[in-house]
Order: sequence, then C-alpha cells, then structure tokens
Amino acid sequence: MSAPIVITMGDPSGVGPEVTVKALAARDAALRAQTVVIGDVETLTRAAKSTGVTLPIIGPKDDGDGIRVDHIAVDGLPGKFGVLSPACGEASFRYIERAVQLSMADKAACIVTAPINKEALNSAGHHYDGHTGMLAHLTGSKSSWMLLASERLDVIHVSTHVSLKDAIGRATSQRVLDTIRTGHRHFQRMGVENPRLAVAGINPHCGENGLFGREDDDQIAPAVAQARAEGIDVVGPISADTVYYRAYNGAFDLVIAQYHDQGHIPIKLVAFDTAVNVSLGLPIDRCSVDHGTAFDIAGTGTANHENMICALDYGARLTAAKRG
Amino acid sequence: MSAPIVITMGDPSGVGPEVTVKALAARDAALRAQTVVIGDVETLTRAAKSTGVTLPIIGPKDDGDGIRVDHIAVDGLPGKFGVLSPACGEASFRYIERAVQLSMADKAACIVTAPINKEALNSAGHHYDGHTGMLAHLTGSKSSWMLLASERLDVIHVSTHVSLKDAIGRATSQRVLDTIRTGHRHFQRMGVENPRLAVAGINPHCGENGLFGREDDDQIAPAVAQARAEGIDVVGPISADTVYYRAYNGAFDLVIAQYHDQGHIPIKLVAFDTAVNVSLGLPIDRCSVDHGTAFDIAGTGTANHENMICALDYGARLTAAKRG
Repeated sequence: MSAPIVITMGDPSGVGPEVTVKALAARDAALRAQTVVIGDVETLTRAAKSTGVTLPIIGPKDDGDGIRVDHIAVDGLPGKFGVLSPACGEASFRYIERAVQLSMADKAACIVTAPINKEALNSAGHHYDGHTGMLAHLTGSKSSWMLLASERLDVIHVSTHVSLKDAIGRATSQRVLDTIRTGHRHFQRMGVENPRLAVAGINPHCGENGLFGREDDDQIAPAVAQARAEGIDVVGPISADTVYYRAYNGAFDLVIAQYHDQGHIPIKLVAFDTAVNVSLGLPIDRCSVDHGTAFDIAGTGTANHENMICALDYGARLTAAKRG
Repeated sequence: MSAPIVITMGDPSGVGPEVTVKALAARDAALRAQTVVIGDVETLTRAAKSTGVTLPIIGPKDDGDGIRVDHIAVDGLPGKFGVLSPACGEASFRYIERAVQLSMADKAACIVTAPINKEALNSAGHHYDGHTGMLAHLTGSKSSWMLLASERLDVIHVSTHVSLKDAIGRATSQRVLDTIRTGHRHFQRMGVENPRLAVAGINPHCGENGLFGREDDDQIAPAVAQARAEGIDVVGPISADTVYYRAYNGAFDLVIAQYHDQGHIPIKLVAFDTAVNVSLGLPIDRCSVDHGTAFDIAGTGTANHENMICALDYGARLTAAKRG
C-alpha cells in the first residue's frame, strides 16, 4: 500500500487504545486498510474486548480486514488501565518517535495521535510538555501552530500555552503574518482555492481606536495589510465578540485567534466532542484528538470515540491532499 | 399603576424607536400597561408607521391599550433616521437622565435602554463612553458590572472596556470576590435560592500550576475560597475553554468572566440576537439591548426587534423581583 495513516495509541493506561479500536471499527474496511496503529498488541486486544469490537488485530501488512498494528515491545507492558506508570510513559514516547521516523522517511502519510499523559512521560525521563514540544524536537522544528478544526468553525492560534500576559507580547506583526500565511497555505492544500480568513482583534472592540490598547492598530493591522498585499483573502482585525459568530455562520473559512482561550472557548462551545487538533508548520502532517487520557474511565469501554473518528477522518483528508 | 418599566428610546436617528415599538407590539396589553417609553412622540409615530405597528401612541397615564410615551421636547427633533446629529445626542442624554431621576425617586421600577450613539452624545457636549459611564455618573456610583444574560448562558465580567493588558491587572482578588458576590446576590434576587457559580481562569488551563502565569493561583483562587467561606456555591478557577461549555449545558447558573472578550465570545456565539446586557452594582435596575444604533438601516422598519423583546422581558422579571 501507499504510505499509511498511522495512529499512535497514546498512553496504554489511558483511553487511547479503546477510542482507537472503536473509531477504526466505526469506519469502513477501505480506511482500515490504509491505517496502521503503532502500539501494543495485547493492550489493543484488551481494549477491543472491553469495547465489544470483534475485528481481528492483525499485522501492519497482513491481508484482509482488521485493525492493523505495528507492535512496539516495551518492558512492563501491558500495564493496568487507569494506572500511571513510567513504562506507559516510555511506551507513549516510543510510539510517537516511531511515527515521526516513518513520517520523515515518507513511510507514513500522516500521524493521528491518541492522548498521552505528561506526568507519565516525564517519569520515564522524557521531559516534554506533551505532543507539541516532542514533535517539534523530533522533527527539528522551531515553531508550529495549533489549528482546531470542526464542522462549522476552524481557528488557528497565534500562541497557545503561554500566560495571557505573554500572549499579548507574542502577537507581533511577524507572528500574526506567519500565522495568516500558514492558515492560508493549509486551506489551499486542503482544496479550498481561495480561503476566506479573518483575524480576531486582541483588545475589546479591537481597542476602539487605541482607547483600550494599541496592539490591534500597531501589531495586528499591519500584518493583515501585508497578507492582503500578498494576495491572501484576509480581513481584520475584527472584534473578537463577533468574528467567531460570523465564521460559525459561514462568513469565513478560518479565524486567526490571538491567544489560546480566544480560539478554544468558541470551538469547545460548538464542537466539544468533535474538534480536531491539527499541527501546522511541522515537516510532517499530524492531527490529534483534543481530549486527555481520562484515567478515571480507561478500560471500562465507555470512553466516547467520536473525537477519534473526527481525527481519523481529518487524517484521511490530509493524506488524500498529500497524495493529490 | 405601580412604578412602571421605562424604556429609553435611544438615539432618535437610530433603530431604537422602531425596535421599541415593535417589541411592545409583540408583547401583551398587560405588559404594555406597565411600560412607558421615554422619547419623542413624533419619532415614535414615524417608527410605528415604518414598521406597520398600528397601536396608538398614548400618554403615560392614559387608559386603554397602546404605546405609552413620556414625551421630552428637544430642539431639532424629529431628526432624520440614519443621520448623526447633536440634537439626537442631546435627546439620547435627556431620556436617560429622566429615566434615572424617575428610578432614583422610585417612580420607575427598571430602565430598559435602546441604543445610543457615542459620537452624537459627545457632539452634544455629553462626554461619556456610553451608557455605562453615564449611568455611573448620574447615580453617583463608583463601580458597576456588566452581566450578559441569555436563555442557557449567563456571564458577569470582572472588567469590560479596558485593554487586555489592563484587564489582567484588574482581575484582583478583591474585584473577583466582589464580582462573585454581586452575581450571587443578583441571582438570589431573581429567585434562584442557591445559584451555582463558576469562575473562569484567566490563563490557559488556569496557568497549569503556575507554568503559564500565576494569576489564577495568586489572585483568583483566593477570591473563590473566600466566597465559598461566605457560603456562596462557587467553584473555580475552571479552565476557560471548558467552563462556558459546561455552563451552557446546565452545570452552572452563572460564569464569572475575567475580561470582556472571554465573556462576550461565548455569549455572542450562542445568543447573538437574544443576549441582554444587565447593569449590576448600581442603585437602580437597568438592562439593555446589546446592539448599536445601526444608522445604516434605521427608519426602514427592518431592524430585528428580538433583542429588545428579550431586554423588555428581562426588565419585567427585574420589576417582578423588585415588587416581590
């Protein structure tokens, strides 16, 4: 087969394995045939049992319908669902490491990641803040962007995991411009010839002519002007209290959010279970569920796999775009 | 009659007059009987004509069904719909001034305000930032709060029209605590015996133990602890990307938003045409439509009056609460 979509199973103690098998079971054999899970066969077998999934667990290149698994042996596995352990942290790391190696060698078209646990990761000696830092390091990237994609609203963030105070400083003209360009390129790649972008303001009413802060006029507006000069269909800054509403109702394909919560609040409100986290600016394609390991319910088979279905579908779209 | 609800007609050139007459026509005679519009008879007569409202325009104490108007004569009126003028700015001011005088003398139960135009107001020599500053000055109040109320989501703001940078500084323990207390008292007054409040965090993931800013731990958490010690059912800080979703789905009656856009983004997304702006912390009761004068469509009779209906209904609830 051509380079497959790879799903990293995530922390073996979390809900990653069960949402992975449930999502694959919910999709058709054609999609399963081009998807490989990087993880632990025994854990996935247990997850299938707990969720009532009867598809066979098969090898990555086996014929026939099933859940294709690229097994990575890690000492101490299988562990116990719901129990944090260094072995599971180590496994989480190794799955992603393998996925990145495959992607960099063009042997994976796209990575879809299930949730990992930061504490488990660190207890195994891998000192990352989560997927973002790990992917940047493993791919040698300096910066990346988080796009949250959902049916009616997509947002890309100028900054994410920094304090609100720091986020204001990070909304420089250069970063806003780079964010616009990155979002524009991504939508073009996904088949939207002339995507309509809108940039959210950072101050209330975009500062109302400098009355409530000058960042909108001094930092954001010049970036929008430059992007327009480059031929990008982008408007803004538009007051944040209306731009998400307008985008949700069809006026724009993508909103540039100035900080983490500005983009996350509207997305979570309208697409809590369905928003997919897409990494842009890396040399590889990666998307992810937007929920955590949920140790409290892991292994019970009750975890909602809707978000993993959405992530898998987005991964399939990314893969189709790559194949042209 | 007992002290009525008074509606200030807003800027005579804007959509205030037409949404006022349409909203009153859309409600029943009982509500009209206890409501008085402070404004200009001729402007309201024209607005009724343009919107096809056939109810008679009558005096504030007249018998029978109709739109009760407390006429205030202002030089230069009636003006032209859609045209900004000092005369209309002066009129906007005088309607509110009268409404506040009536409220302070217990001759009005509640003020419902239609939109005014800040530029017109200032061109008439009344140098206010809009209703908020004017109401604070006319009632001798030092501080007030903006609550946005809608069917499934209510938010009260720690701060509103200040830059995002300043908003971070304003989210002091004292102000957050005062905001919690104010919201709690308001809901109790509106008949919710034990309102469930949630406080939104200010940094992503509430700063994740200080990793992305310390304000949640140092400023917000102590305020929540103090409010709980006072017997208020309040939790938080809760990550802003989930608290609005949870409140919208029934977990909380009210969310304390740390800054303007944090509260406005979710409200506008789920209740763009129906959210009512309620002023708390003043010695009078006031609520308002949450839209502007829309000079571009004023006089055409096409303005959506749904928001004014919601404001009027909220005013009726405030009035019922006052009467006990």
